[in-house]
Amino acid sequence: MKLISFIRDNRIRSGVLVNDEFIADLNTSCYLMLIEKGEEEQFAERYCNAIVPPDMLGVLQAGDKGFEVVKEILEWSKKRNDILYNINQVKLKAPLVRANMLRDFLAFRGHVEATYKRRGQPIPEEWFRIPIYYKGDPAIFYGHLEEVPWPKYSKLVDIELEIAAIIYKRGKDIDKIRARDYILGFTIFNDFSARDIQMAEMKGLLGPAKGKDFANGLGPWIVTKDELSDIKGLRVYAKVNNEIWCDTKAEDMQWSFEDMIAYVSQDEYIRPGDVFGSGTVSGCTGLDIGKSLKPNSSIELYVEKIGILKNIIVKNHQ
Amino acid sequence: MKLISFIRDNRIRSGVLVNDEFIADLNTSCYLMLIEKGEEEQFAERYCNAIVPPDMLGVLQAGDKGFEVVKEILEWSKKRNDILYNINQVKLKAPLVRANMLRDFLAFRGHVEATYKRRGQPIPEEWFRIPIYYKGDPAIFYGHLEEVPWPKYSKLVDIELEIAAIIYKRGKDIDKIRARDYILGFTIFNDFSARDIQMAEMKGLLGPAKGKDFANGLGPWIVTKDELSDIKGLRVYAKVNNEIWCDTKAEDMQWSFEDMIAYVSQDEYIRPGDVFGSGTVSGCTGLDIGKSLKPNSSIELYVEKIGILKNIIVKNHQ
Repeated sequence: MKLISFIRDNRIRSGVLVNDEFIADLNTSCYLMLIEKGEEEQFAERYCNAIVPPDMLGVLQAGDKGFEVVKEILEWSKKRNDILYNINQVKLKAPLVRANMLRDFLAFRGHVEATYKRRGQPIPEEWFRIPIYYKGDPAIFYGHLEEVPWPKYSKLVDIELEIAAIIYKRGKDIDKIRARDYILGFTIFNDFSARDIQMAEMKGLLGPAKGKDFANGLGPWIVTKDELSDIKGLRVYAKVNNEIWCDTKAEDMQWSFEDMIAYVSQDEYIRPGDVFGSGTVSGCTGLDIGKSLKPNSSIELYVEKIGILKNIIVKNHQ
Repeated sequence: MKLISFIRDNRIRSGVLVNDEFIADLNTSCYLMLIEKGEEEQFAERYCNAIVPPDMLGVLQAGDKGFEVVKEILEWSKKRNDILYNINQVKLKAPLVRANMLRDFLAFRGHVEATYKRRGQPIPEEWFRIPIYYKGDPAIFYGHLEEVPWPKYSKLVDIELEIAAIIYKRGKDIDKIRARDYILGFTIFNDFSARDIQMAEMKGLLGPAKGKDFANGLGPWIVTKDELSDIKGLRVYAKVNNEIWCDTKAEDMQWSFEDMIAYVSQDEYIRPGDVFGSGTVSGCTGLDIGKSLKPNSSIELYVEKIGILKNIIVKNHQ
């Protein structure tokens, strides 16, 4: 199943892909489905607003109950071509415009090796012992084909091709072996980075802040785990202005999403709408290959079995 | 004005202190006030749920509109002793049980000097140039007199006495001179820290994670800025098991809350319910004075013009 957010009547709507071309609006389809089943209008309105609201964060907060309704809606919508939206005729948003929390890890070994090689230092032993991550602003996601603003305070903007796992259940002290139950699915994550300010901030030892918190790409949709059981070995590539920056496989993960969930959830709840970023797939950032973005660069990130997330970074100031 | 959250009928309620002893429940008082004015029940219900819901984050999201209604409720409640709650007879929660985002800074110079002295290094020049902060889990706040759980994964737990500014308006690219408009008020913030894991995580250069994200004290209430215009020079103390850990004034701030807001809001929205922590007041953490907590330690943080935030840290495991 592919979950998506899009714009209709100038408002954000949660949706599900019925096929490669058409989207069902979750909230509207839920309402029409219940009416067809003979429910009262006011009840249908309230029930669908509670379980499959127009914001995807709300849909995820309904957990398995919401997921079951989404599956029903998908089956029902296959017979209702008249109420579907052509994906090429609507503006897409990030599938989760607003996450609950964003945690972004450093799971890929090749990227960490490249980072410390540049610094002339060995990889710290802590990286092998615990999954390292920072927390980002969860409300700065840009979807497929959305323009991303170049931050006014940076001269050196970069991308990071990552894969994100999306959480849809609340839990604490989760064993690694049960961790998959908390994942709804996966999507492509572009961890845009302002390298100049990021490096300055990290000297303060509390991690990146403005170096990361201006924009993240997320999308084009969430592929649920029944369709995509694992991300290991998936082919990925990044193209910037049609130039290949990397073309590789997601293979050298020191830490799996299950490891991350088990680590984070110690004495702390993970919650529906939490986004776990994998960290840059090795070699898939300008930093690792000596490149950076220019204003109006177009960035295309591909992950096998998920699709393409494309954005243009636009500089609207001097 | 003092905004507070408390438990009634096993549910969290937002409230305002009517005097030193009594709390008005915002949502219920709003409803009764509107009924008294002749409004329809259903409208009163919907209006009060939108503007002054039982969760304080929702109240802050109503911005100035919500704040005006809270002021009306406060005046109205002064004549309605029959519907007030005695603060000594209810269980308090953190005024914001769930924040929108938590950003915690390093504003006090004495603390930063002590930190780098221990490391045998000079303070990095970046600290003088930009306000350094990390982002924490915004859903782990404990209120006055709530028990705080000792994290299973740590042997070395510490406190940090901080002051927090609470945001109640959305804004971006905010000038320092306008930044105060976005602050609703201030409260006491205890940035509980698991020093052993924090130090290991910070070796990974992305800042603290589990070293911070198990608990924060916040409370006892938010003192709005009409009552407390600035925090500079306020006397503060921290007592652990009745032993004074620090007794000082909040004076050597390199960065004001206005500086922090101006910095953060560059190309990024700040939002209602964002919490800005000041960083440890110099000397007001065990780290600076060579102490740490024991299981069942009682911690009392005092800030002049705000009050006392007291918690006990409880170890329920071996």
